[in-house]
Amino acid sequence: MKNPIISSRIRLARNLKEYPFPKSLNRAQAVQITEKVKTAMAPVIQNYTFADMEKMDEVTKLSLVENHIISPEAAKKRDCSLFLAADGKSEVLVNEEDHVRIQTVFSGDSLEEAYDLANKLDDLLDERLNFAFSEKKYGYLTACLTNTGTGLRASYMVHLPMLEKTKQIKALQNEVGRFGMVIRGIYGEGSEPLGSLYQISNQITLGKSEEEIIKDLKNIVNQIIKKEEELQNKIKENNDFADLVYRSLGIVKYCKKISSQEAMKHLSNIKLGISSGIISGMEDNIYNIMVDIQSGNICKRAGDIIDSKKRDVLRAGYLNEKLN
Amino acid sequence: MKNPIISSRIRLARNLKEYPFPKSLNRAQAVQITEKVKTAMAPVIQNYTFADMEKMDEVTKLSLVENHIISPEAAKKRDCSLFLAADGKSEVLVNEEDHVRIQTVFSGDSLEEAYDLANKLDDLLDERLNFAFSEKKYGYLTACLTNTGTGLRASYMVHLPMLEKTKQIKALQNEVGRFGMVIRGIYGEGSEPLGSLYQISNQITLGKSEEEIIKDLKNIVNQIIKKEEELQNKIKENNDFADLVYRSLGIVKYCKKISSQEAMKHLSNIKLGISSGIISGMEDNIYNIMVDIQSGNICKRAGDIIDSKKRDVLRAGYLNEKLN
Repeated sequence: MKNPIISSRIRLARNLKEYPFPKSLNRAQAVQITEKVKTAMAPVIQNYTFADMEKMDEVTKLSLVENHIISPEAAKKRDCSLFLAADGKSEVLVNEEDHVRIQTVFSGDSLEEAYDLANKLDDLLDERLNFAFSEKKYGYLTACLTNTGTGLRASYMVHLPMLEKTKQIKALQNEVGRFGMVIRGIYGEGSEPLGSLYQISNQITLGKSEEEIIKDLKNIVNQIIKKEEELQNKIKENNDFADLVYRSLGIVKYCKKISSQEAMKHLSNIKLGISSGIISGMEDNIYNIMVDIQSGNICKRAGDIIDSKKRDVLRAGYLNEKLN
Repeated sequence: MKNPIISSRIRLARNLKEYPFPKSLNRAQAVQITEKVKTAMAPVIQNYTFADMEKMDEVTKLSLVENHIISPEAAKKRDCSLFLAADGKSEVLVNEEDHVRIQTVFSGDSLEEAYDLANKLDDLLDERLNFAFSEKKYGYLTACLTNTGTGLRASYMVHLPMLEKTKQIKALQNEVGRFGMVIRGIYGEGSEPLGSLYQISNQITLGKSEEEIIKDLKNIVNQIIKKEEELQNKIKENNDFADLVYRSLGIVKYCKKISSQEAMKHLSNIKLGISSGIISGMEDNIYNIMVDIQSGNICKRAGDIIDSKKRDVLRAGYLNEKLN
């Protein structure tokens, strides 16, 4: 089996001591915070694009959500702004749930690299901003109690089609809770898993060091991947799965309209085919295609907000081209 | 629209005066009849292969049924035998429902050619056999009353996907009865239509001349084709139909197992795509593929009787190859 880890993410939640949490800020205070962060970012600012979320058009916002750069909540927030690195690997979000959220993402199994980069940004900002930190008891103070402590959320995005098909994912979701971990669909809490993509992350940030959180997460994820691998190994010579996988390939190559949900199902099957060895000689750029065919990204490419019926046609055309 | 007529057929039912109808024959009489026909066929016999149906293996019989060379009933009959022309265009069936059945088939819209060839064979046999014929009243006498008269059944095999999809075929089936015609699924009475293939033929052979029967049938079929054409013209630019047709193409190109019924559905959609102009630059050999993927023909190619699960896999492999 190919490694099913799509990306590794780190998020650090930080707040400025002298201000109330974002939901209680007035506009003047919010602007001050943004300016302070901008100043603190000065040594690296040339690598970042700054965007005021309120001034951003809806299509761009939706596209950023689909690319996992901002949360759906951030897209709707007042006074929220974003520093996004040119290489897409890091960003600083200001006045979302917390005053400052440092986020890094690396493709594949690269949690340490993601953590290193987040740490560097954290050091840089920490030198110049007065982060709310309780030395004796809590660690970093955050708007939501679940983030208090390290303020760290470490997460992997993983493709788990066989655990999903065999319904074992549900049991795992319950099980990992005991270790302070959580398995979610890719678009965060409450959302349905699409394309068998799951985010596995720590839920608890209090009472553990950053290194322990990362170590525990890696450990859990490795066990989950092993289970997925055992299942994928069994299907390599199974014609029922070959049929499933190749039909999905045939459909995305030839359909002339397709919903996002159906496309995600077929792309996940194709990704399973490549990963398990049923399909050989095909490059696995499926995750990128999954992102590209989301509604916002289709509108972004079309340069306009287009209705669902038209999107289904454009999505099919994009898939026909990409898979051929 | 491409012409949806797949083939044109003529069948002449004849019986020998001096013998009871086949179902009342003893074996000695049946053998005598077979010998008499063989002798009568002498001038052309070098063009025909003779086969005793009782001695034929089941796979070959099933394959002949699927190629519309014999009926499912003939495959099961005692004392039944077949003279089959090397070019497949004509055959003489002995001791099926009637003593002698002359059958001719030409691809496309060629009912006159089929009739000419059947007529020639009829003349040849009529010279040397004593056909039961009531000059004054009934014409040729046949085992089943519906064939009495000319003993002629003229038929077209036609692909009518849009009349089927719009459910207009049901109304047409009732309507043509008033003109002594019948529309059936391809495997004859009572069978479900497969692949939107219909046989349109005369039901009445009494009280009309051969020429009238053929003229009336052509007339009816032309009207039906016109209706089908109107419907197909409407879908050429319709993306819903493009999606339907191209998905079917994708599935038959990539599936790894497929039932006969599902394959027929997709092949019919592809044939509709070619016919309506939705798919361009693709040769329409779909009907031949439809015949080739029937169970008996799959077994015939495999050289063995194989179970349904294995057939589904072989069928998929054959389709993948033929459509790619």
